[in-house]
Amino acid sequence: MTAEPAPIALSLGDPAGIGPEIVVGAWRALQTSGPAFVVVGDAASLARAAGLGAVKAVARFADGAAVFADHLPVLDLPLPAPARPGAADPAAAASIIAWIERAAALALSGEASAVVTAPIAKAPLYKAGFKFPGHTEFLGERTGAPEAPVMMLAAGGLRCALVTIHEPLAKVSGALSREGIVRVGRTTAEALKRDFAVAAPRLAVAALNPHAGEDGALGGEEAAIIAPAVRALQAAGIAARGPFPADTLFHPEARKTYDAALCMYHDQALIPVKMLDFWAGVNVTLGLPIVRTSPDHGVAFDIAGKGVARPDSLIAAVRLAAQIAARRAAG
Amino acid sequence: MTAEPAPIALSLGDPAGIGPEIVVGAWRALQTSGPAFVVVGDAASLARAAGLGAVKAVARFADGAAVFADHLPVLDLPLPAPARPGAADPAAAASIIAWIERAAALALSGEASAVVTAPIAKAPLYKAGFKFPGHTEFLGERTGAPEAPVMMLAAGGLRCALVTIHEPLAKVSGALSREGIVRVGRTTAEALKRDFAVAAPRLAVAALNPHAGEDGALGGEEAAIIAPAVRALQAAGIAARGPFPADTLFHPEARKTYDAALCMYHDQALIPVKMLDFWAGVNVTLGLPIVRTSPDHGVAFDIAGKGVARPDSLIAAVRLAAQIAARRAAG
Repeated sequence: MTAEPAPIALSLGDPAGIGPEIVVGAWRALQTSGPAFVVVGDAASLARAAGLGAVKAVARFADGAAVFADHLPVLDLPLPAPARPGAADPAAAASIIAWIERAAALALSGEASAVVTAPIAKAPLYKAGFKFPGHTEFLGERTGAPEAPVMMLAAGGLRCALVTIHEPLAKVSGALSREGIVRVGRTTAEALKRDFAVAAPRLAVAALNPHAGEDGALGGEEAAIIAPAVRALQAAGIAARGPFPADTLFHPEARKTYDAALCMYHDQALIPVKMLDFWAGVNVTLGLPIVRTSPDHGVAFDIAGKGVARPDSLIAAVRLAAQIAARRAAG
Repeated sequence: MTAEPAPIALSLGDPAGIGPEIVVGAWRALQTSGPAFVVVGDAASLARAAGLGAVKAVARFADGAAVFADHLPVLDLPLPAPARPGAADPAAAASIIAWIERAAALALSGEASAVVTAPIAKAPLYKAGFKFPGHTEFLGERTGAPEAPVMMLAAGGLRCALVTIHEPLAKVSGALSREGIVRVGRTTAEALKRDFAVAAPRLAVAALNPHAGEDGALGGEEAAIIAPAVRALQAAGIAARGPFPADTLFHPEARKTYDAALCMYHDQALIPVKMLDFWAGVNVTLGLPIVRTSPDHGVAFDIAGKGVARPDSLIAAVRLAAQIAARRAAG
C-alpha cells in the first residue's frame, strides 16, 4: 500500500499582491483532483479573497490534507495589520519572510513534500532588512544547499536554466565565468536525472552574442568563456553542446535536440518560455535539498484585488512540485 | 488595363554559398505563379545548380519576365573563375558587389520593381576592400537614402525593427541613444504606412533590461534613453508605447497589440522571429528609395552544393518584395 504523499507547503507571498486570489483560484482548480497544499500565511487575507467559509485554519500542518477537498487549509501565522490589495506594507515583511521560512522548515522535516512560493515584492522586504536577491538565494541559504541554487524556467516542454538572472544587460558579460556555467550545467544535469526522470540529459548551451560571435567578429565571450565551459562539462561526462546562436535554439525542431537550454541572461530564457506559454510557465529551483517551485510572474500590485489575476502559473507550479516530489520519493 | 509589374532583380550573392541552389528552388516554386524575378549574377553557377537547359541568359533585364515561366532568367555578369560550393573565393568579391550594384541600379531606374538579395559572406568581401557592414548599409549609400536604413525582420505576422544590429551584447547599451531609437521608430512607422498598408501604425518599444529595469534596480537605460525616446515619438504623433519587458512582448495576445516591435538588440528580435517561423523569416530594409528584401539566413558554406538548403526564406522574400512594390505603385 502506498502512503498518501505529504501535502505541499504554499507560502502566501506578499498579501497585498495577487497572491491571495491566485491561491484561492489554484485551490478551486485542484480541490477535487489534488495535489493538496496547505497555505502558510495569513488566514484573513485568504478569507477576503475566498469569501466566507471557504478557508479553514488548521492547528497542525499535517491536518491540512484531510481538509483540502472541502476547504482551503491554512496554517495561520497572522499579519500584524490587515493587508490592503495594491498597497505594499513594510510592516508585513517579517510575516512574509516567516511564512517562507516555515514552509522551508516543513519541507526539510518531511512534513511537507515540497514548497511552492507565491510571489513576493522585493523592495518592501529590502526595506525591512531582507538580505537576499530573492526566494531562490534565501532558500539556498536556509536549506543548507551545498552550492548556489539554479533558477530554471519551464513551459510548453521547454526548460531553460539561467547562468545569470537579474543582471542589467550591460553587466551580463562581466558576470559570466567558465566556472559559473559549469556549475549551472552540472546542477541542471543532476536535476534533470533526479527530478525530471531524464536518464541521459542533453544540454544545449546558448551563445551570448549575435551569430554566436561570428568567430570573434561580434564578441569574444564564446571563445573565451562559453566554449571552454562546454568542453569542461563534456569532460565531466555531461552531454553538453554549444555555444549555439540563441536565435537558432528555440524553434520546434531545435527544441527536440536537448532536455534543457543553458541561457546566459534573463530575457534569452524568458522570451522563449513566455512565447510558448505566457500564462503557465513555472520557476523551479534546482540544487536544493527540498523541492521548490513558484509561478514565473510577480506580485502584480496594479491588478491585485480586482479578481482578474490568472492562477494558471501557480497551478502549474503546484503540479510540477508534486511530480518532482513523487520522483524523489520513488528514486 | 493594369500593366504587368516589372520583374524583381535578384542578386545572386556569394556563388560559393547556398545562393545558387535556393535561387533555383525559388524559381521552381514560383515559375507558374510568380512573382517573376531575374537573377543578376553568374549564369554558370546557376546552371550548375539547376541542371542543363533550365537557365536562360537574357541580353536585357526587361526580357527576363517573358522567360520566367519556362526558364530561370539571368542577366549574366560572369565570374572570373568558376565558383566551388563551400569554398569562398576573394576573387569573386568584385562580381558579388557588382551584382548588388546592378540590381540596385535597375530598381532605381524602375526597370526592376524591387531588389531581393541572396546571402553574402562578409569576410571575403572585407578582404577585397568592401567598406560596409552589410547589404543594408551598402544599399543605403548606393541609393542615396536620406537617413540610415532600418533592418526589419518579419515572420509569422510579427515584425521587429532593430535599433542595434550586429553589436556584441556587451556593447549594446553604449550603442543606444534616444535619437537612434526615435529615428528607427519614425522610419518604421513611415514604412508600415507606405509598404505594409497599416494606416495608423502602433509601435511597441522593448526594454533592454530584465523586467524593463525594475524602476532602475536592474538597469537605467529604460529611464535614461528608451522612455524619453518613446515620449519623443509620441510627441511626433506616432502611436508608440513602452518600454515593455521583452519577455512580455511576443506571446500571441501581446502581438495583437502592435504592428511592429522596436527591438534594442539582435537576439531580442531574432529569437521570437525564428521561433514563429524558422524557415521563412524575411529581412526587409526600411527607409530606402527602392524596395529591398532578403532571406534572414546566411551563405551556409557548410551545406552549400549538397542539395539540402531550403528556399523557403528566399521565396518569402520574393513574395514580400512584390507585395511592397505593388503597394508603392498603387500608393
